[in-house]
Amino acid sequence: MLRVRLTVEPSLDATDYPFNHRIRVRFAETDAMGIVHHSRYLPYLEETRVAYLRHLGHPYAEMRSDGVDYAVLECFVQYRQPLRFDEEVDVHLRLASATRTSFQMAYLLTVDEVVKATAVTVHGCVTAARRPIRLPQWLIDLGS
Amino acid sequence: MLRVRLTVEPSLDATDYPFNHRIRVRFAETDAMGIVHHSRYLPYLEETRVAYLRHLGHPYAEMRSDGVDYAVLECFVQYRQPLRFDEEVDVHLRLASATRTSFQMAYLLTVDEVVKATAVTVHGCVTAARRPIRLPQWLIDLGS
Amino acid sequence: MLRVRLTVEPSLDATDYPFNHRIRVRFAETDAMGIVHHSRYLPYLEETRVAYLRHLGHPYAEMRSDGVDYAVLECFVQYRQPLRFDEEVDVHLRLASATRTSFQMAYLLTVDEVVKATAVTVHGCVTAARRPIRLPQWLIDLGS
Amino acid sequence: MLRVRLTVEPSLDATDYPFNHRIRVRFAETDAMGIVHHSRYLPYLEETRVAYLRHLGHPYAEMRSDGVDYAVLECFVQYRQPLRFDEEVDVHLRLASATRTSFQMAYLLTVDEVVKATAVTVHGCVTAARRPIRLPQWLIDLGS
Repeated sequence: MLRVRLTVEPSLDATDYPFNHRIRVRFAETDAMGIVHHSRYLPYLEETRVAYLRHLGHPYAEMRSDGVDYAVLECFVQYRQPLRFDEEVDVHLRLASATRTSFQMAYLLTVDEVVKATAVTVHGCVTAARRPIRLPQWLIDLGS
Repeated sequence: MLRVRLTVEPSLDATDYPFNHRIRVRFAETDAMGIVHHSRYLPYLEETRVAYLRHLGHPYAEMRSDGVDYAVLECFVQYRQPLRFDEEVDVHLRLASATRTSFQMAYLLTVDEVVKATAVTVHGCVTAARRPIRLPQWLIDLGS
Repeated sequence: MLRVRLTVEPSLDATDYPFNHRIRVRFAETDAMGIVHHSRYLPYLEETRVAYLRHLGHPYAEMRSDGVDYAVLECFVQYRQPLRFDEEVDVHLRLASATRTSFQMAYLLTVDEVVKATAVTVHGCVTAARRPIRLPQWLIDLGS
Repeated sequence: MLRVRLTVEPSLDATDYPFNHRIRVRFAETDAMGIVHHSRYLPYLEETRVAYLRHLGHPYAEMRSDGVDYAVLECFVQYRQPLRFDEEVDVHLRLASATRTSFQMAYLLTVDEVVKATAVTVHGCVTAARRPIRLPQWLIDLGS
Protein backbone atom coordinates (compact mmCIF):
# COMPACT_ATOMS: atom_id res chain seq x y z
CA MET A 1 0.00 0.00 0.00
CA LEU A 2 1.31 3.44 -0.84
CA ARG A 3 1.89 5.78 2.09
CA VAL A 4 1.05 8.94 0.16
CA ARG A 5 -0.88 12.10 0.64
CA LEU A 6 -2.86 11.18 -2.47
CA THR A 7 -6.16 9.67 -1.32
CA VAL A 8 -8.64 10.60 -4.03
CA GLU A 9 -10.11 8.13 -6.51
CA PRO A 10 -11.12 9.90 -9.72
CA SER A 11 -14.65 9.18 -10.89
CA LEU A 12 -15.20 7.83 -14.43
CA ASP A 13 -18.39 9.89 -14.74
CA ALA A 14 -17.81 13.27 -16.37
CA THR A 15 -20.81 14.77 -14.57
CA ASP A 16 -18.90 14.46 -11.28
CA TYR A 17 -16.52 17.17 -12.48
CA PRO A 18 -17.62 20.84 -12.34
CA PHE A 19 -15.01 22.12 -14.81
CA ASN A 20 -13.95 21.08 -18.31
CA HIS A 21 -11.15 22.30 -20.56
CA ARG A 22 -10.60 21.13 -24.13
CA ILE A 23 -7.08 20.60 -25.52
CA ARG A 24 -6.20 19.50 -29.05
CA VAL A 25 -3.27 17.06 -29.23
CA ARG A 26 -0.17 18.50 -30.89
CA PHE A 27 1.97 16.43 -33.22
CA ALA A 28 4.98 17.30 -31.06
CA GLU A 29 3.30 15.46 -28.16
CA THR A 30 3.16 12.08 -29.93
CA ASP A 31 5.92 9.47 -29.72
CA ALA A 32 7.20 6.66 -31.93
CA MET A 33 4.35 4.41 -30.72
CA GLY A 34 2.07 6.81 -32.64
CA ILE A 35 0.33 7.96 -29.45
CA VAL A 36 0.68 10.82 -26.98
CA HIS A 37 3.75 10.23 -24.79
CA HIS A 38 2.74 9.47 -21.21
CA SER A 39 4.76 12.43 -19.85
CA ARG A 40 2.70 14.84 -21.96
CA TYR A 41 -0.46 14.31 -19.93
CA LEU A 42 0.98 16.33 -17.03
CA PRO A 43 1.11 19.61 -18.98
CA TYR A 44 -2.52 18.94 -20.04
CA LEU A 45 -3.50 18.69 -16.37
CA GLU A 46 -1.53 21.83 -15.56
CA GLU A 47 -3.09 23.81 -18.41
CA THR A 48 -6.50 22.74 -17.10
CA ARG A 49 -5.66 23.82 -13.53
CA VAL A 50 -4.57 27.21 -14.84
CA ALA A 51 -7.80 27.55 -16.83
CA TYR A 52 -9.80 26.57 -13.73
CA LEU A 53 -8.08 29.16 -11.52
CA ARG A 54 -8.74 31.82 -14.18
CA HIS A 55 -12.38 30.69 -14.30
CA LEU A 56 -12.57 31.08 -10.49
CA GLY A 57 -11.20 34.62 -10.69
CA HIS A 58 -7.86 33.68 -9.09
CA PRO A 59 -5.48 33.56 -12.07
CA TYR A 60 -2.26 31.66 -11.41
CA ALA A 61 -0.11 34.35 -13.06
CA GLU A 62 -1.47 36.84 -10.51
CA MET A 63 -0.64 34.56 -7.58
CA ARG A 64 2.85 34.07 -8.94
CA SER A 65 3.36 37.82 -9.14
CA ASP A 66 2.39 37.88 -5.44
CA GLY A 67 5.27 35.47 -4.79
CA VAL A 68 3.07 32.41 -4.22
CA ASP A 69 3.44 29.21 -6.21
CA TYR A 70 1.50 25.95 -6.27
CA ALA A 71 4.13 23.27 -5.86
CA VAL A 72 3.25 19.84 -7.20
CA LEU A 73 3.81 17.37 -4.35
CA GLU A 74 2.53 14.20 -6.02
CA CYS A 75 0.96 13.06 -9.23
CA PHE A 76 -0.72 9.91 -10.39
CA VAL A 77 -1.97 9.02 -13.87
CA GLN A 78 -3.82 5.92 -15.04
CA TYR A 79 -3.61 5.50 -18.82
CA ARG A 80 -6.65 3.56 -20.05
CA GLN A 81 -6.78 4.22 -23.79
CA PRO A 82 -4.15 6.08 -25.84
CA LEU A 83 -4.59 9.63 -27.09
CA ARG A 84 -3.72 10.35 -30.70
CA PHE A 85 -2.60 13.30 -32.78
CA ASP A 86 -5.24 15.96 -33.49
CA GLU A 87 -7.78 14.49 -31.07
CA GLU A 88 -9.69 16.97 -28.93
CA VAL A 89 -9.30 15.92 -25.32
CA ASP A 90 -11.77 17.03 -22.67
CA VAL A 91 -9.96 17.37 -19.37
CA HIS A 92 -12.55 17.30 -16.59
CA LEU A 93 -11.35 18.68 -13.27
CA ARG A 94 -12.57 18.59 -9.68
CA LEU A 95 -10.99 20.11 -6.59
CA ALA A 96 -11.31 16.92 -4.57
CA SER A 97 -10.10 18.09 -1.18
CA ALA A 98 -8.22 20.86 0.59
CA THR A 99 -6.58 21.17 3.99
CA ARG A 100 -4.74 24.19 5.35
CA THR A 101 -1.52 23.07 3.66
CA SER A 102 -2.40 21.00 0.60
CA PHE A 103 -5.12 20.29 -1.93
CA GLN A 104 -5.91 17.50 -4.37
CA MET A 105 -7.25 17.76 -7.89
CA ALA A 106 -8.95 14.84 -9.66
CA TYR A 107 -9.09 14.57 -13.45
CA LEU A 108 -10.92 12.58 -16.09
CA LEU A 109 -9.71 12.72 -19.70
CA THR A 110 -12.20 11.86 -22.43
CA VAL A 111 -12.36 12.07 -26.23
CA ASP A 112 -15.87 12.05 -27.69
CA GLU A 113 -17.08 11.00 -24.22
CA VAL A 114 -14.86 7.88 -24.22
CA VAL A 115 -12.71 7.61 -21.08
CA LYS A 116 -8.99 7.80 -21.91
CA ALA A 117 -7.28 8.45 -18.57
CA THR A 118 -7.74 9.50 -14.95
CA ALA A 119 -5.33 11.41 -12.78
CA VAL A 120 -4.78 13.01 -9.39
CA THR A 121 -2.38 15.77 -8.43
CA VAL A 122 -1.51 16.94 -4.90
CA HIS A 123 -0.35 20.51 -4.36
CA GLY A 124 0.90 22.80 -1.65
CA CYS A 125 1.46 26.54 -1.59
CA VAL A 126 5.04 27.73 -1.38
CA THR A 127 6.87 31.05 -1.39
CA ALA A 128 9.37 31.96 -4.12
CA ALA A 129 12.03 30.43 -1.86
CA ARG A 130 9.88 27.25 -1.77
CA ARG A 131 8.93 27.56 1.89
CA PRO A 132 5.49 25.98 2.47
CA ILE A 133 2.76 28.43 3.44
CA ARG A 134 -0.92 28.23 4.32
CA LEU A 135 -3.37 27.93 1.41
CA PRO A 136 -5.43 31.03 0.62
CA GLN A 137 -8.75 30.93 2.47
CA TRP A 138 -10.89 30.87 -0.71
CA LEU A 139 -9.13 27.66 -1.76
CA ILE A 140 -9.62 25.99 1.64
CA ASP A 141 -13.30 26.97 1.57
CA LEU A 142 -13.71 25.66 -1.97
CA GLY A 143 -12.26 22.25 -1.10
CA SER A 144 -14.18 21.73 2.11
CA MET B 1 -8.23 4.62 -1.42
CA LEU B 2 -7.04 4.28 -4.98
CA ARG B 3 -8.20 1.17 -6.82
CA VAL B 4 -5.06 0.85 -8.92
CA ARG B 5 -2.67 -1.84 -10.10
CA LEU B 6 0.13 0.19 -8.48
CA THR B 7 0.91 -1.44 -5.13
CA VAL B 8 4.61 -0.82 -4.61
CA GLU B 9 6.02 1.59 -2.07
CA PRO B 10 9.46 2.84 -3.15
CA SER B 11 12.19 2.56 -0.54
CA LEU B 12 14.15 5.67 0.46
CA ASP B 13 17.32 3.58 0.81
CA ALA B 14 19.43 3.56 -2.37
CA THR B 15 20.93 0.18 -1.47
CA ASP B 16 17.50 -1.41 -2.04
CA TYR B 17 17.86 -0.66 -5.77
CA PRO B 18 20.09 -2.91 -7.91
CA PHE B 19 20.46 -0.45 -10.80
CA ASN B 20 21.48 3.19 -11.03
CA HIS B 21 21.57 5.62 -13.97
CA ARG B 22 22.92 9.17 -13.78
CA ILE B 23 21.25 12.02 -15.71
CA ARG B 24 22.39 15.63 -15.78
CA VAL B 25 19.53 18.16 -15.71
CA ARG B 26 19.16 20.15 -18.95
CA PHE B 27 18.31 23.82 -18.89
CA ALA B 28 15.37 23.06 -21.21
CA GLU B 29 13.88 20.91 -18.43
CA THR B 30 13.60 23.75 -15.91
CA ASP B 31 10.55 25.99 -15.56
CA ALA B 32 9.86 29.54 -14.41
CA MET B 33 10.00 28.39 -10.76
CA GLY B 34 13.70 27.78 -11.41
CA ILE B 35 13.37 24.02 -10.88
CA VAL B 36 12.84 20.97 -13.07
CA HIS B 37 9.24 20.88 -14.27
CA HIS B 38 7.34 18.00 -12.68
CA SER B 39 6.47 16.47 -16.07
CA ARG B 40 10.15 16.12 -16.90
CA TYR B 41 10.73 13.41 -14.30
CA LEU B 42 8.88 10.86 -16.44
CA PRO B 43 11.43 10.95 -19.30
CA TYR B 44 14.16 10.49 -16.64
CA LEU B 45 12.41 7.33 -15.42
CA GLU B 46 12.00 6.13 -19.01
CA GLU B 47 15.64 6.76 -19.89
CA THR B 48 16.60 4.74 -16.80
CA ARG B 49 14.30 1.84 -17.77
CA VAL B 50 15.87 1.79 -21.24
CA ALA B 51 19.38 1.78 -19.71
CA TYR B 52 18.32 -1.05 -17.38
CA LEU B 53 16.96 -3.21 -20.20
CA ARG B 54 20.19 -2.65 -22.16
CA HIS B 55 22.15 -3.61 -19.05
CA LEU B 56 20.09 -6.82 -18.81
CA GLY B 57 20.86 -7.69 -22.44
CA HIS B 58 17.28 -7.05 -23.58
CA PRO B 59 17.49 -3.66 -25.30
CA TYR B 60 14.17 -1.92 -25.76
CA ALA B 61 14.94 -0.94 -29.36
CA GLU B 62 15.33 -4.65 -30.17
CA MET B 63 11.97 -5.52 -28.59
CA ARG B 64 10.33 -2.71 -30.53
CA SER B 65 11.77 -4.06 -33.80
CA ASP B 66 10.12 -7.39 -32.83
CA GLY B 67 6.78 -5.56 -32.66
CA VAL B 68 6.53 -5.55 -28.85
CA ASP B 69 6.14 -2.37 -26.80
CA TYR B 70 6.04 -1.67 -23.09
CA ALA B 71 2.89 0.37 -22.57
CA VAL B 72 2.81 2.62 -19.51
CA LEU B 73 -0.39 1.76 -17.63
CA GLU B 74 0.09 3.93 -14.55
CA CYS B 75 2.63 6.26 -13.05
CA PHE B 76 3.09 7.88 -9.67
CA VAL B 77 5.67 10.45 -8.60
CA GLN B 78 6.26 11.97 -5.17
CA TYR B 79 8.28 15.21 -5.36
CA ARG B 80 10.20 15.70 -2.11
CA GLN B 81 12.88 18.26 -2.97
CA PRO B 82 13.23 20.15 -6.25
CA LEU B 83 15.83 19.31 -8.90
CA ARG B 84 17.83 22.17 -10.39
CA PHE B 85 19.68 22.94 -13.60
CA ASP B 86 22.98 21.11 -14.11
CA GLU B 87 22.50 18.80 -11.14
CA GLU B 88 23.49 15.18 -11.64
CA VAL B 89 20.55 13.02 -10.68
CA ASP B 90 21.01 9.37 -9.73
CA VAL B 91 17.91 7.45 -10.74
CA HIS B 92 17.86 4.21 -8.77
CA LEU B 93 15.61 1.51 -10.22
CA ARG B 94 14.17 -1.76 -9.01
CA LEU B 95 11.87 -4.17 -10.84
CA ALA B 96 9.44 -4.42 -7.94
CA SER B 97 7.05 -7.07 -9.21
CA ALA B 98 5.94 -8.89 -12.33
CA THR B 99 2.90 -10.97 -13.22
CA ARG B 100 2.15 -12.61 -16.55
CA THR B 101 0.62 -9.40 -17.87
CA SER B 102 2.19 -6.43 -16.05
CA PHE B 103 5.23 -5.33 -14.09
CA GLN B 104 6.04 -2.50 -11.70
CA MET B 105 9.21 -0.46 -11.47
CA ALA B 106 10.14 1.51 -8.33
CA TYR B 107 12.47 4.51 -8.46
CA LEU B 108 14.44 6.66 -6.05
CA LEU B 109 15.94 9.94 -7.29
CA THR B 110 18.89 11.35 -5.40
CA VAL B 111 21.43 14.15 -5.87
CA ASP B 112 24.63 13.75 -3.85
CA GLU B 113 22.81 11.03 -1.89
CA VAL B 114 20.01 13.41 -0.84
CA VAL B 115 16.54 12.04 -1.62
CA LYS B 116 14.71 14.19 -4.18
CA ALA B 117 11.79 12.05 -5.36
CA THR B 118 10.33 8.57 -5.50
CA ALA B 119 8.24 7.05 -8.26
CA VAL B 120 6.46 3.94 -9.47
CA THR B 121 5.49 2.97 -13.01
CA VAL B 122 3.26 0.08 -14.05
CA HIS B 123 3.69 -1.47 -17.49
CA GLY B 124 2.19 -4.08 -19.74
CA CYS B 125 3.40 -5.59 -22.99
CA VAL B 126 1.44 -4.76 -26.11
CA THR B 127 1.69 -5.49 -29.83
CA ALA B 128 2.16 -2.69 -32.38
CA ALA B 129 -1.66 -2.61 -32.59
CA ARG B 130 -1.69 -2.16 -28.78
CA ARG B 131 -3.22 -5.57 -28.03
CA PRO B 132 -2.01 -6.77 -24.60
CA ILE B 133 0.26 -9.82 -24.71
CA ARG B 134 2.05 -11.99 -22.17
CA LEU B 135 5.31 -10.65 -20.75
CA PRO B 136 8.50 -12.33 -21.98
CA GLN B 137 9.48 -15.18 -19.63
CA TRP B 138 12.82 -13.59 -18.61
CA LEU B 139 10.92 -10.56 -17.31
CA ILE B 140 8.41 -12.66 -15.34
CA ASP B 141 11.30 -14.63 -13.83
CA LEU B 142 13.19 -11.47 -12.95
CA GLY B 143 10.22 -9.96 -11.10
CA SER B 144 9.27 -13.07 -9.14
CA MET C 1 26.33 33.39 -46.39
CA LEU C 2 24.18 30.36 -45.66
CA ARG C 3 23.74 27.95 -48.54
CA VAL C 4 20.23 26.91 -47.56
CA ARG C 5 16.90 26.30 -49.21
CA LEU C 6 15.44 28.88 -46.84
CA THR C 7 15.13 32.16 -48.77
CA VAL C 8 12.11 33.90 -47.28
CA GLU C 9 12.30 36.97 -45.08
CA PRO C 10 9.31 37.16 -42.76
CA SER C 11 7.46 40.49 -42.75
CA LEU C 12 6.97 42.31 -39.45
CA ASP C 13 3.52 43.47 -40.59
CA ALA C 14 0.73 41.15 -39.44
CA THR C 15 -1.46 42.17 -42.37
CA ASP C 16 0.96 40.38 -44.72
CA TYR C 17 -0.16 37.07 -43.24
CA PRO C 18 -3.49 35.55 -44.35
CA PHE C 19 -3.84 33.17 -41.39
CA ASN C 20 -3.65 33.59 -37.63
CA HIS C 21 -3.78 31.08 -34.79
CA ARG C 22 -3.80 31.98 -31.10
CA ILE C 23 -1.92 29.91 -28.51
CA ARG C 24 -1.79 30.51 -24.76
CA VAL C 25 1.64 29.90 -23.20
CA ARG C 26 1.71 26.92 -20.84
CA PHE C 27 3.68 27.00 -17.62
CA ALA C 28 5.46 23.82 -18.73
CA GLU C 29 6.89 25.78 -21.67
CA THR C 30 8.74 28.31 -19.54
CA ASP C 31 12.33 27.87 -18.34
CA ALA C 32 14.41 29.05 -15.40
CA MET C 33 14.92 32.43 -17.10
CA GLY C 34 11.19 32.95 -16.54
CA ILE C 35 10.43 33.00 -20.27
CA VAL C 36 9.32 30.51 -22.90
CA HIS C 37 12.23 28.21 -23.76
CA HIS C 38 13.46 28.84 -27.30
CA SER C 39 12.84 25.23 -28.36
CA ARG C 40 9.14 25.59 -27.52
CA TYR C 41 8.47 27.98 -30.38
CA LEU C 42 8.74 25.15 -32.91
CA PRO C 43 5.66 23.28 -31.60
CA TYR C 44 3.78 26.61 -31.76
CA LEU C 45 4.68 26.92 -35.45
CA GLU C 46 3.68 23.30 -36.05
CA GLU C 47 0.34 23.69 -34.27
CA THR C 48 -0.33 26.72 -36.47
CA ARG C 49 0.55 24.82 -39.68
CA VAL C 50 -1.84 22.05 -38.65
CA ALA C 51 -4.59 24.61 -37.97
CA TYR C 52 -3.90 26.23 -41.36
CA LEU C 53 -4.15 22.93 -43.26
CA ARG C 54 -7.42 22.17 -41.47
CA HIS C 55 -8.66 25.66 -42.41
CA LEU C 56 -7.74 24.93 -46.05
CA GLY C 57 -9.72 21.68 -45.99
CA HIS C 58 -6.62 19.51 -46.15
CA PRO C 59 -6.20 18.25 -42.57
CA TYR C 60 -2.76 16.91 -41.77
CA ALA C 61 -4.12 13.85 -39.96
CA GLU C 62 -5.89 12.89 -43.20
CA MET C 63 -2.71 13.23 -45.25
CA ARG C 64 -0.86 11.12 -42.72
CA SER C 65 -3.48 8.37 -42.97
CA ASP C 66 -2.80 8.47 -46.75
CA GLY C 67 0.86 7.73 -45.99
CA VAL C 68 2.14 11.24 -46.75
CA ASP C 69 4.09 13.32 -44.25
CA TYR C 70 5.43 16.86 -44.30
CA ALA C 71 9.07 16.52 -43.35
CA VAL C 72 10.72 19.59 -41.81
CA LEU C 73 13.88 20.26 -43.86
CA GLU C 74 14.99 23.51 -42.23
CA CYS C 75 13.86 25.94 -39.59
CA PHE C 76 14.89 29.41 -38.57
CA VAL C 77 13.68 31.50 -35.63
CA GLN C 78 14.57 35.05 -34.66
CA TYR C 79 13.73 35.79 -31.02
CA ARG C 80 13.06 39.52 -30.61
CA GLN C 81 11.22 39.78 -27.30
CA PRO C 82 10.59 36.98 -24.82
CA LEU C 83 7.24 35.25 -24.40
CA ARG C 84 5.94 34.72 -20.88
CA PHE C 85 3.62 32.35 -19.05
CA ASP C 86 -0.09 32.77 -19.75
CA GLU C 87 0.41 35.23 -22.61
CA GLU C 88 -1.79 34.75 -25.65
CA VAL C 89 0.45 34.51 -28.69
CA ASP C 90 -0.86 35.23 -32.16
CA VAL C 91 1.02 33.11 -34.66
CA HIS C 92 0.57 34.66 -38.10
CA LEU C 93 1.33 32.32 -40.99
CA ARG C 94 1.93 32.72 -44.71
CA LEU C 95 2.74 30.05 -47.29
CA ALA C 96 5.66 31.99 -48.73
CA SER C 97 6.64 29.78 -51.67
CA ALA C 98 6.19 26.31 -53.13
CA THR C 99 8.02 24.32 -55.77
CA ARG C 100 7.24 20.79 -56.89
CA THR C 101 9.32 19.34 -54.05
CA SER C 102 9.36 21.82 -51.16
CA PHE C 103 7.51 24.74 -49.64
CA GLN C 104 8.32 27.53 -47.17
CA MET C 105 6.16 28.95 -44.41
CA ALA C 106 6.82 32.38 -42.88
CA TYR C 107 5.63 33.26 -39.37
CA LEU C 108 5.22 36.35 -37.23
CA LEU C 109 4.56 35.94 -33.50
CA THR C 110 2.88 38.80 -31.68
CA VAL C 111 1.34 39.43 -28.27
CA ASP C 112 -1.12 42.33 -28.09
CA GLU C 113 0.18 43.36 -31.55
CA VAL C 114 3.78 43.64 -30.28
CA VAL C 115 6.27 41.68 -32.40
CA LYS C 116 7.92 38.89 -30.39
CA ALA C 117 9.55 36.65 -33.01
CA THR C 118 9.71 35.73 -36.68
CA ALA C 119 10.36 32.32 -38.19
CA VAL C 120 10.63 30.34 -41.40
CA THR C 121 10.21 26.61 -41.92
CA VAL C 122 11.02 24.65 -45.09
CA HIS C 123 9.18 21.41 -45.80
CA GLY C 124 9.08 18.57 -48.28
CA CYS C 125 6.58 15.76 -48.75
CA VAL C 126 7.76 12.25 -47.94
CA THR C 127 6.25 8.77 -47.86
CA ALA C 128 6.00 6.76 -44.64
CA ALA C 129 9.45 5.34 -45.56
CA ARG C 130 10.69 8.97 -45.83
CA ARG C 131 11.19 8.89 -49.62
CA PRO C 132 10.65 12.40 -51.06
CA ILE C 133 7.60 12.75 -53.27
CA ARG C 134 6.00 15.52 -55.30
CA LEU C 135 3.86 18.03 -53.40
CA PRO C 136 0.09 17.73 -53.86
CA GLN C 137 -1.06 20.01 -56.73
CA TRP C 138 -3.28 22.19 -54.48
CA LEU C 139 -0.25 23.07 -52.39
CA ILE C 140 1.92 23.94 -55.43
CA ASP C 141 -0.92 26.11 -56.77
CA LEU C 142 -1.38 27.83 -53.41
CA GLY C 143 2.30 28.78 -53.16
CA SER C 144 2.70 30.03 -56.74
CA MET D 1 17.74 36.95 -48.53
CA LEU D 2 17.44 36.85 -44.78
CA ARG D 3 18.51 40.00 -42.95
CA VAL D 4 19.82 38.17 -39.90
CA ARG D 5 22.78 38.27 -37.58
CA LEU D 6 23.36 34.62 -38.42
CA THR D 7 26.16 34.49 -41.00
CA VAL D 8 27.97 31.22 -40.31
CA GLU D 9 27.80 28.20 -42.58
CA PRO D 10 28.41 25.00 -40.60
CA SER D 11 31.05 22.70 -42.05
CA LEU D 12 30.14 19.07 -42.82
CA ASP D 13 33.59 17.95 -41.71
CA ALA D 14 33.71 16.89 -38.04
CA THR D 15 37.42 17.76 -37.82
CA ASP D 16 36.48 21.45 -38.18
CA TYR D 17 34.88 21.33 -34.72
CA PRO D 18 37.08 21.43 -31.60
CA PHE D 19 34.44 20.04 -29.22
CA ASN D 20 32.17 17.02 -29.26
CA HIS D 21 29.40 15.89 -26.91
CA ARG D 22 27.53 12.59 -27.22
CA ILE D 23 23.79 12.34 -26.47
CA ARG D 24 21.65 9.22 -26.61
CA VAL D 25 18.17 9.77 -28.08
CA ARG D 26 15.37 9.32 -25.55
CA PHE D 27 12.12 7.62 -26.49
CA ALA D 28 10.27 10.71 -25.23
CA GLU D 29 12.00 12.73 -27.97
CA THR D 30 10.56 10.72 -30.86
CA ASP D 31 7.29 11.56 -32.60
CA ALA D 32 4.61 9.63 -34.48
CA MET D 33 6.81 9.65 -37.64
CA GLY D 34 9.12 7.35 -35.64
CA ILE D 35 11.95 9.90 -35.63
CA VAL D 36 13.21 12.60 -33.28
CA HIS D 37 10.86 15.58 -33.38
CA HIS D 38 12.51 18.57 -35.05
CA SER D 39 12.01 20.76 -31.96
CA ARG D 40 14.05 18.32 -29.85
CA TYR D 41 17.32 19.19 -31.61
CA LEU D 42 17.48 22.55 -29.83
CA PRO D 43 17.87 21.06 -26.34
CA TYR D 44 20.65 18.84 -27.79
CA LEU D 45 22.48 21.96 -28.98
CA GLU D 46 21.93 23.63 -25.61
CA GLU D 47 23.19 20.63 -23.64
CA THR D 48 26.30 20.66 -25.84
CA ARG D 49 26.87 24.40 -25.25
CA VAL D 50 26.61 23.83 -21.51
CA ALA D 51 29.11 20.93 -21.70
CA TYR D 52 31.45 23.14 -23.78
CA LEU D 53 31.36 26.00 -21.26
CA ARG D 54 32.05 23.53 -18.45
CA HIS D 55 34.97 22.15 -20.50
CA LEU D 56 36.30 25.71 -20.88
CA GLY D 57 36.14 26.29 -17.14
CA HIS D 58 33.26 28.77 -17.38
CA PRO D 59 30.23 26.73 -16.28
CA TYR D 60 26.89 28.19 -17.30
CA ALA D 61 25.34 27.57 -13.86
CA GLU D 62 28.10 29.79 -12.37
CA MET D 63 27.41 32.62 -14.83
CA ARG D 64 23.70 32.39 -14.08
CA SER D 65 24.39 32.71 -10.35
CA ASP D 66 26.32 35.89 -11.25
CA GLY D 67 23.13 37.22 -12.86
CA VAL D 68 24.30 36.79 -16.46
CA ASP D 69 22.38 34.73 -19.01
CA TYR D 70 23.09 33.75 -22.60
CA ALA D 71 19.97 34.74 -24.49
CA VAL D 72 19.26 32.87 -27.72
CA LEU D 73 18.76 35.51 -30.41
CA GLU D 74 18.45 33.28 -33.45
CA CYS D 75 18.61 29.62 -34.35
CA PHE D 76 18.82 27.70 -37.60
CA VAL D 77 18.69 23.94 -38.13
CA GLN D 78 19.04 21.96 -41.36
CA TYR D 79 17.66 18.43 -41.00
CA ARG D 80 19.47 16.12 -43.44
CA GLN D 81 18.75 12.62 -42.16
CA PRO D 82 16.40 11.69 -39.31
CA LEU D 83 17.57 10.71 -35.85
CA ARG D 84 16.02 7.64 -34.25
CA PHE D 85 15.37 6.28 -30.77
CA ASP D 86 18.43 5.02 -28.86
CA GLU D 87 20.93 6.36 -31.41
CA GLU D 88 24.04 7.99 -29.99
CA VAL D 89 24.36 11.42 -31.54
CA ASP D 90 27.69 13.23 -31.66
CA VAL D 91 27.07 16.95 -31.46
CA HIS D 92 30.17 18.72 -32.76
CA LEU D 93 30.43 22.37 -31.73
CA ARG D 94 32.52 25.33 -32.81
CA LEU D 95 32.43 28.90 -31.51
CA ALA D 96 32.26 30.41 -34.97
CA SER D 97 32.47 34.13 -34.18
CA ALA D 98 32.16 36.65 -31.38
CA THR D 99 31.70 40.40 -31.24
CA ARG D 100 31.38 42.55 -28.15
CA THR D 101 27.63 41.89 -28.00
CA SER D 102 26.92 38.54 -29.63
CA PHE D 103 28.46 35.21 -30.59
CA GLN D 104 27.62 32.41 -32.99
CA MET D 105 27.94 28.67 -32.45
CA ALA D 106 28.04 26.20 -35.36
CA TYR D 107 27.03 22.55 -34.94
CA LEU D 108 27.32 19.31 -36.85
CA LEU D 109 25.27 16.31 -35.72
CA THR D 110 26.48 12.86 -36.72
CA VAL D 111 25.64 9.25 -35.86
CA ASP D 112 28.42 6.74 -36.56
CA GLU D 113 30.12 9.52 -38.55
CA VAL D 114 27.12 9.96 -40.88
CA VAL D 115 25.96 13.57 -41.12
CA LYS D 116 22.42 14.01 -39.73
CA ALA D 117 22.00 17.76 -39.29
CA THR D 118 23.76 21.11 -39.09
CA ALA D 119 22.80 24.11 -37.01
CA VAL D 120 23.75 27.63 -35.98
CA THR D 121 22.72 29.55 -32.88
CA VAL D 122 23.29 33.25 -32.20
CA HIS D 123 23.54 34.48 -28.60
CA GLY D 124 23.90 37.64 -26.61
CA CYS D 125 24.59 38.22 -22.93
CA VAL D 126 21.80 39.67 -20.85
CA THR D 127 21.20 40.55 -17.22
CA ALA D 128 18.48 38.85 -15.17
CA ALA D 129 16.21 41.70 -16.30
CA ARG D 130 17.14 40.78 -19.91
CA ARG D 131 19.11 43.98 -20.57
CA PRO D 132 21.90 43.29 -23.12
CA ILE D 133 25.42 43.56 -21.73
CA ARG D 134 28.94 43.17 -23.09
CA LEU D 135 30.26 39.62 -23.51
CA PRO D 136 32.89 38.47 -20.99
CA GLN D 137 36.38 39.14 -22.36
CA TRP D 138 37.41 35.46 -22.44
CA LEU D 139 34.51 34.76 -24.78
CA ILE D 140 35.35 37.66 -27.11
CA ASP D 141 38.98 36.49 -27.19
CA LEU D 142 37.96 32.91 -27.89
CA GLY D 143 35.82 33.87 -30.88
CA SER D 144 38.28 36.25 -32.48
